Amino acid sequence: MQINLRARDLGIPFEGNPGNFNAITDLAGVEVGFCTIIEDSKSGKAEIGKGPVRTGVTAILPRGKDRTFHDFVFAGWFSLNGYGEMTGAHAIEETGFMQGPFMITNTCSVGVVRDAVDQWAVNHGSNMHLATVAETSDIYLNDMEGFHVKPEHAFAAIEGASSSVIPEGNVGGGTGMICYGLKGGTGTSSRIVTIDRHDYTLGVLAQTNHGESHQLMVAGVPVGLELPGELGVSRGIKRHSERERFDKSSIIIVVGTDAPVLPHQLKRIARRASLGLGRTGAISANGSGDIFLAFSTANPGSALKTSEYTTTTLPNRDMDYLFEATVEATEEAIINSLIAAKTMTGFSGTVNALPQDLLIEILRKHGRLKF
Amino acid sequence: MQINLRARDLGIPFEGNPGNFNAITDLAGVEVGFCTIIEDSKSGKAEIGKGPVRTGVTAILPRGKDRTFHDFVFAGWFSLNGYGEMTGAHAIEETGFMQGPFMITNTCSVGVVRDAVDQWAVNHGSNMHLATVAETSDIYLNDMEGFHVKPEHAFAAIEGASSSVIPEGNVGGGTGMICYGLKGGTGTSSRIVTIDRHDYTLGVLAQTNHGESHQLMVAGVPVGLELPGELGVSRGIKRHSERERFDKSSIIIVVGTDAPVLPHQLKRIARRASLGLGRTGAISANGSGDIFLAFSTANPGSALKTSEYTTTTLPNRDMDYLFEATVEATEEAIINSLIAAKTMTGFSGTVNALPQDLLIEILRKHGRLKF
Amino acid sequence: MQINLRARDLGIPFEGNPGNFNAITDLAGVEVGFCTIIEDSKSGKAEIGKGPVRTGVTAILPRGKDRTFHDFVFAGWFSLNGYGEMTGAHAIEETGFMQGPFMITNTCSVGVVRDAVDQWAVNHGSNMHLATVAETSDIYLNDMEGFHVKPEHAFAAIEGASSSVIPEGNVGGGTGMICYGLKGGTGTSSRIVTIDRHDYTLGVLAQTNHGESHQLMVAGVPVGLELPGELGVSRGIKRHSERERFDKSSIIIVVGTDAPVLPHQLKRIARRASLGLGRTGAISANGSGDIFLAFSTANPGSALKTSEYTTTTLPNRDMDYLFEATVEATEEAIINSLIAAKTMTGFSGTVNALPQDLLIEILRKHGRLKF
Amino acid sequence: MQINLRARDLGIPFEGNPGNFNAITDLAGVEVGFCTIIEDSKSGKAEIGKGPVRTGVTAILPRGKDRTFHDFVFAGWFSLNGYGEMTGAHAIEETGFMQGPFMITNTCSVGVVRDAVDQWAVNHGSNMHLATVAETSDIYLNDMEGFHVKPEHAFAAIEGASSSVIPEGNVGGGTGMICYGLKGGTGTSSRIVTIDRHDYTLGVLAQTNHGESHQLMVAGVPVGLELPGELGVSRGIKRHSERERFDKSSIIIVVGTDAPVLPHQLKRIARRASLGLGRTGAISANGSGDIFLAFSTANPGSALKTSEYTTTTLPNRDMDYLFEATVEATEEAIINSLIAAKTMTGFSGTVNALPQDLLIEILRKHGRLKF
Repeated sequence: MQINLRARDLGIPFEGNPGNFNAITDLAGVEVGFCTIIEDSKSGKAEIGKGPVRTGVTAILPRGKDRTFHDFVFAGWFSLNGYGEMTGAHAIEETGFMQGPFMITNTCSVGVVRDAVDQWAVNHGSNMHLATVAETSDIYLNDMEGFHVKPEHAFAAIEGASSSVIPEGNVGGGTGMICYGLKGGTGTSSRIVTIDRHDYTLGVLAQTNHGESHQLMVAGVPVGLELPGELGVSRGIKRHSERERFDKSSIIIVVGTDAPVLPHQLKRIARRASLGLGRTGAISANGSGDIFLAFSTANPGSALKTSEYTTTTLPNRDMDYLFEATVEATEEAIINSLIAAKTMTGFSGTVNALPQDLLIEILRKHGRLKF
Repeated sequence: MQINLRARDLGIPFEGNPGNFNAITDLAGVEVGFCTIIEDSKSGKAEIGKGPVRTGVTAILPRGKDRTFHDFVFAGWFSLNGYGEMTGAHAIEETGFMQGPFMITNTCSVGVVRDAVDQWAVNHGSNMHLATVAETSDIYLNDMEGFHVKPEHAFAAIEGASSSVIPEGNVGGGTGMICYGLKGGTGTSSRIVTIDRHDYTLGVLAQTNHGESHQLMVAGVPVGLELPGELGVSRGIKRHSERERFDKSSIIIVVGTDAPVLPHQLKRIARRASLGLGRTGAISANGSGDIFLAFSTANPGSALKTSEYTTTTLPNRDMDYLFEATVEATEEAIINSLIAAKTMTGFSGTVNALPQDLLIEILRKHGRLKF
Repeated sequence: MQINLRARDLGIPFEGNPGNFNAITDLAGVEVGFCTIIEDSKSGKAEIGKGPVRTGVTAILPRGKDRTFHDFVFAGWFSLNGYGEMTGAHAIEETGFMQGPFMITNTCSVGVVRDAVDQWAVNHGSNMHLATVAETSDIYLNDMEGFHVKPEHAFAAIEGASSSVIPEGNVGGGTGMICYGLKGGTGTSSRIVTIDRHDYTLGVLAQTNHGESHQLMVAGVPVGLELPGELGVSRGIKRHSERERFDKSSIIIVVGTDAPVLPHQLKRIARRASLGLGRTGAISANGSGDIFLAFSTANPGSALKTSEYTTTTLPNRDMDYLFEATVEATEEAIINSLIAAKTMTGFSGTVNALPQDLLIEILRKHGRLKF
Repeated sequence: MQINLRARDLGIPFEGNPGNFNAITDLAGVEVGFCTIIEDSKSGKAEIGKGPVRTGVTAILPRGKDRTFHDFVFAGWFSLNGYGEMTGAHAIEETGFMQGPFMITNTCSVGVVRDAVDQWAVNHGSNMHLATVAETSDIYLNDMEGFHVKPEHAFAAIEGASSSVIPEGNVGGGTGMICYGLKGGTGTSSRIVTIDRHDYTLGVLAQTNHGESHQLMVAGVPVGLELPGELGVSRGIKRHSERERFDKSSIIIVVGTDAPVLPHQLKRIARRASLGLGRTGAISANGSGDIFLAFSTANPGSALKTSEYTTTTLPNRDMDYLFEATVEATEEAIINSLIAAKTMTGFSGTVNALPQDLLIEILRKHGRLKF
């Protein structure tokens, strides 16, 4: 089942060797779920509290529904630009573990999703209390200040999580997002790397909501400069002034791996997402919450130990393979989000999808298509 | 109006020169509000979801209700031990500004309070979206996993904020807290420092919920070792094992000043809270969320500027006076929380107040009382 | 005077508007000096302690020779990968000021250069003691473990500093460096940005010594994949094993601006160097010391103030222009270092320059040449 | 062999259970060496470059002379106030390992000692290049700006290192240091902690050079306020103004343990040194380089691994015992440095030792002596 078009399907070249799904779910045990909320305005026009609603919740469960809330994974994070939110960050930095799942939603709904994760944990016999919830702002397409996300939506994202192919584009937390002025949202990719004859998987999931249209680079080609200027939406929001047009963007990038790396090594991996992001033309604008997290599914049971225990790890020098995979899969996940996303009309207007025929034409002109 | 007994009233010695209220509200413009929630169990026994409820919300508004949500203050933070939560941290680190108020509640209610601040902001014409909410865990005395804090409680704390004397002990977010095995909660103190013939005010508010009873030091005297062993509660919680007894503690310390210091200088001040905390015997246990924030009310309007602007600041060398004041006021705020707090019975049992006659006797024996 | 070929001379496209020299010296007051040390082996063969010597020292003086040692600049730094050294980092992070100049040399000579700066300061009536010295490793081409850099070399770099055109490639600290398997070294670039009708200059100087040849991207084109495989040197070092081949690389990037930005804002700028680096194909390998510093020449005299003073600053939202300039100038400085560097034979063998005719051919094929 | 008086010998009370030597050398394998340099002025008066010289070098070798330069230890650090230097910090943060020994000297000699460690490594077949060297300033008693430390002194400290009793006070890097206005220098202490019936050792070595005399607290008693005011030296330096009197202080604290803790856990331990320091009255002044490092001798061979390997570690909750030991041993090490140090006359005058009879009298008055 191929549920949406991918960048590779168009012949866009990427380095490295992806996994079976070319998705973060290529990692054994990882489950990803989405709750997408799309509703017309109750009043027939864009009105705070009435809609239209174009938002949702994404849940990444590193060890699946059964174990994620008890058997925490090692994690590390990096904030390239912190004009955003990711709860749980202090605890991850301190303890080396991420408690429970990684959730993504819109900016105004971080709180409700956070407490919902706590509630879900209590209901399922976990005593975790420091949930990890990140966000990007869908205030252009969604009635974000109408607070339409409810605990049930977070529960649905968790309960619907699966370990198979991942839908991309306008789904879950990514539903109403804008990437380089075009319709963005959710994107994913993965790499298989071989270290000492051992295969490891590394997967990336990104919620893309950053950048201005002129900045977009695809496969190194400055596509944004060659697209028609009127195609992309500028981030001006009706009731805000022109000067804030750069604000309200963000990109959340989650990197998972089954390579046995420790918390301080996962911070290293998280930082590399910056380099993949840079390849797509990003400058990480002032108003952007560009926060990246990496986790490892290796060393299960570590958080449950009550006395001295052993962990498996990789020598630092072997991390180069994981670094390279992170850069590559981050770039591809971002482009995938643009390829899958469909044109959407919402609260403040319409955001166009990246026109694929035009993209192909530009890349072909630059000799950057594989077929 | 003196609404509760203070440590100084007992003759406990502290260095430095406090302000009029010896409270964070000695800072011009700062308003502090509390919503205290105390309810019996709806089922007549301790039951998750039914109570008893012993919790609340504390709101610190650096520029009062009218301006806090628009005219953000410079801020900086430090996590001595990050087994806790403080939302808004990424944005403060990145931008140098704290958006809106500083809120404190229990661990399971961070989300509802966070979104409520966003809602209050939307309702009052602010477009801030990255609220700062910290927590300590009241799971021993409060039905924390019953999620009894609602948006209205956060609104009430904000709307009831005032710039006068601050109640201490079992109020607001501090209602159900335990400090060194004894009843803790909310405490505050302030200092006036003179730099270059200019008077500056520095105030501290702490929500104290950390430590084991044997660790308590008052005015340098190891009071905890001389108190009866059975007096303090150990942090064992009914459904948790003995091994977790150190966990579930925390202390949140907020330092405000009208001295004109920049974001990177405020991080320096936040780190000094550690030294004041150290004087009371703390070891900053693994399960403790010991997170400190400092803000400056100077340089109003900075966050609203749309072109090059000037800020006032202090030379780094003058910060020693602020550092000293931070250490002193932090120590005193913690002890004040213990002096004001009253014995409380709640979800899992009873937590005793620090017996003042015994405390006085011990301090007198060591020649550490002023009268 | 054009002292070496630049990337733009070949028609390689870069975004943005460079300054007069397209160099960090476009910043008023900034002086840059180089001491290049090239000596044959005293024993006629490669021998530790005897040579050949291919190394040097680079000095960046933010306020020129007269004021840099007294009137410190605001600065901030970021370590994308810290397998390297930059002394002075703690003091910059703490105080917001960089004491004196920024020096770059080889890994084994950080100490001698650091103390030499202290000595130069003492000799010139400054009481600064916490010098900032960074490094990259020239162990392949240089007898690095022979410790050939002496205090006089550091003095010479400082004393020879000038505010005009900057030589690039095999000069100063960059003398023996290897970039993407090809001869690298020193590169620079600048941008003029207009914010609110005010022109600001931002300049970058990089000492490039990172990456493997297959990774090189120029103007978005994966040039490294299209170059002959045998052209680039792998980082194997005679007495080290194959497994360390990725190690011993590094890139130091210094960003200067006359825009009035505060220390916490300079950290933001420093982080953006990552995005420019990413555009050239970097993965920031395990053994790479990828450390970036940003300083502002605005607000002169700030470090000399003895009482409350005012600083000028920019609103955070205006920083997008500086972020964009940083990304662009970083990319161009790195490519400039490759264009200027000449093939060099040294301690362990020969490192080829990037063949310009081949480069032009590849870029032309991809429609990525301006002429 | 008891080579100097210790705080415990006077009856000063400390919590916890020290090791055999009550020193960092209670850790199996750890060797500590000192090179003390005391010379009269060559010109018969205090003159920069001529003396008097009162300085030295301290070397801490976590795995002894034979293995420290090859088999690196896990480490983590914290800067409570970064107005100081500790080279090697970037590499420790990045890789989790400290390369080679931990060295301490005076501020102006960090560079020479750093390169000397590199030289020693090259001479002994190690390819480590990123040495860890910290400093405190002895500019009051020592002709620091005369640069009297040479590579031979660093070699001597390394080569003379032993695993037995450690001299304290005026030795090695601590020779010319001033602590709370009184003669400080080197101090050490240790604790044995039992976790799950397993005994672990934790040791602290401090080079004390911080604080003003009125701030000194011993066993919780504000001794500094009760000492004669004229006893302690203020940090005024002849050619500097009165306003700089707080500057030029520092304290370096090294914590070693054989408990199997990982790099991110060692950062947690390093932060706890702040709490022990706080108990002695410190405010961590602006000009103080208060930098702390923790290392673990467990998991030998980790840095030498070339493929997946296992490490042993402790559950986070067991770290409370190590945290408590760190706080206690830090406090005791600082007081030990004051007890051992002898009155010294040097470059700018005389610094008095803490008068022990007076100290005992004050502590007895407050009921804080054990005998």
